[in-house]
Amino acid sequence: MNGYVYHNGLILPASEAGIPVFSPGFLYGEGLFETLRVYGGHPFRLDDHLRRLRVSARTLGIRIRENNFRIAEAIQDLICLNNLSEARVRITLIPGPDSHPGANKKQNPGELVITVIPYSPPRWMSKSGVSAVISAIRRNSFSPLPRWKNLNYLENRLAREEARTRNADEAIFLDQSGFVAEGAMTNVFLVGKSALFTPPTQSPILPGITREIVMELAREQGIPCREKKLRPSDLYRAGEVFLTNSLIEVAPVIKIEGKKIGSGIPGPITKIIQRAYHELLQRNINKKTNS
Amino acid sequence: MNGYVYHNGLILPASEAGIPVFSPGFLYGEGLFETLRVYGGHPFRLDDHLRRLRVSARTLGIRIRENNFRIAEAIQDLICLNNLSEARVRITLIPGPDSHPGANKKQNPGELVITVIPYSPPRWMSKSGVSAVISAIRRNSFSPLPRWKNLNYLENRLAREEARTRNADEAIFLDQSGFVAEGAMTNVFLVGKSALFTPPTQSPILPGITREIVMELAREQGIPCREKKLRPSDLYRAGEVFLTNSLIEVAPVIKIEGKKIGSGIPGPITKIIQRAYHELLQRNINKKTNS
Repeated sequence: MNGYVYHNGLILPASEAGIPVFSPGFLYGEGLFETLRVYGGHPFRLDDHLRRLRVSARTLGIRIRENNFRIAEAIQDLICLNNLSEARVRITLIPGPDSHPGANKKQNPGELVITVIPYSPPRWMSKSGVSAVISAIRRNSFSPLPRWKNLNYLENRLAREEARTRNADEAIFLDQSGFVAEGAMTNVFLVGKSALFTPPTQSPILPGITREIVMELAREQGIPCREKKLRPSDLYRAGEVFLTNSLIEVAPVIKIEGKKIGSGIPGPITKIIQRAYHELLQRNINKKTNS
Repeated sequence: MNGYVYHNGLILPASEAGIPVFSPGFLYGEGLFETLRVYGGHPFRLDDHLRRLRVSARTLGIRIRENNFRIAEAIQDLICLNNLSEARVRITLIPGPDSHPGANKKQNPGELVITVIPYSPPRWMSKSGVSAVISAIRRNSFSPLPRWKNLNYLENRLAREEARTRNADEAIFLDQSGFVAEGAMTNVFLVGKSALFTPPTQSPILPGITREIVMELAREQGIPCREKKLRPSDLYRAGEVFLTNSLIEVAPVIKIEGKKIGSGIPGPITKIIQRAYHELLQRNINKKTNS
């Protein structure tokens, strides 16, 4: 991977940036991250991502030296230096070396790593929609980790691999009681008779930024949207299912565990949400470009 | 942290070693580690630790370039260069950059990081025994992760912090059904009327090297040792409870959740196991010194 990255106040070539081998971020996966898109040279909803990062960082006891302005500036520098327009940003926060969680909040300034790399459309976009499987791994309801976007991401990676092995695009985690939690990298929505439904944030799920946006957009479109515990059977019976995250945006699911969802093609409500999301992106680009 | 470390074939000052910012080990906590003791300049049970590392590495699809001889040699070099005799070794294995789990086993040589730092006795050793709490976090039975010593170690760190906050030395995880799983950094044993008992490896626990050794030692001492599902109430009612790992060895638990275990002092069976463990260590040092 080439290009420039931001690490602890400096912009430097990726090959010159290195995480200390005694960093708890490396030793224990102690740290947080955010992933977001850059459209037409402009990061989308950076403030929302930084808000989530700061809330989780406070819980973990990691102080962020940089204010939002400095972080936005670093991202713009990287977009420019790496000569990108359509890109993905990753912001990673780890504690300084020799610290332990919850302790010495003030004496423990975190290390921030920011990377901006080219955006490449996910595989399913070249097809009519996403195929998903139900992962053998389940989300832990007795842990705070699923609710933070943190560096303990191995289960997500294994579930993605499980999907790949089974020739699918995404894996969906259930919780330990068998309720639908979330995708390995996405939140899950289904279109019911009367409304959109998605698992509540009390479930062991990441409270996705795109999930929030989609719930707002649906309501603006006159489509009721409700949080509800869902069974896999609810997904199979749904007219439409879609997945959301900052990178894949709103992705129609046409198959789960080999079973066709609805008529096996992206449904009308999913298309309404996709259009509304793209209009929002366009408005955002116009606003940024004119400002 | 000063001293020399081993990273990808080189011995170099820790300050010059760095994990690439695009490494899956850093980005996702994708990787494995082993921690072991050095006694009198000799690593203890290195081969057992490397065997466990290699088994998990195969499952994760990470190839280890180094053979056991090379790893042992690197550890000896670090013991020597860092001028240590009583020390702790950490061997960390992460995939090369841009790889995904389970894929390209051959094209994906892992990065090995080895650190050897001074051993400092755990806090409880200055007291008569360990006090423990039951963690609010539970082990996930629906995940392979608890069974591998891997870089997704944040729950363990949070549980340790929970123990510290509650003025205890260790936190014990239950599984989702409420059975005792393991300590945040240890395996759990209890002394019952007829035998030693410890949770089975089918539970979401790490199959500890010291756990194995202790089971063998107990049998050699004529003490039956059995794997059994245990409830917290079994711990409270036990005559003795002790914890094991490579660093704390065999540590008597004298209190759990403020409740005294047995008579609140290290019990006779725990002492027999501790003595047997120390004799084993001494035999090992003598053998290495004479060879």
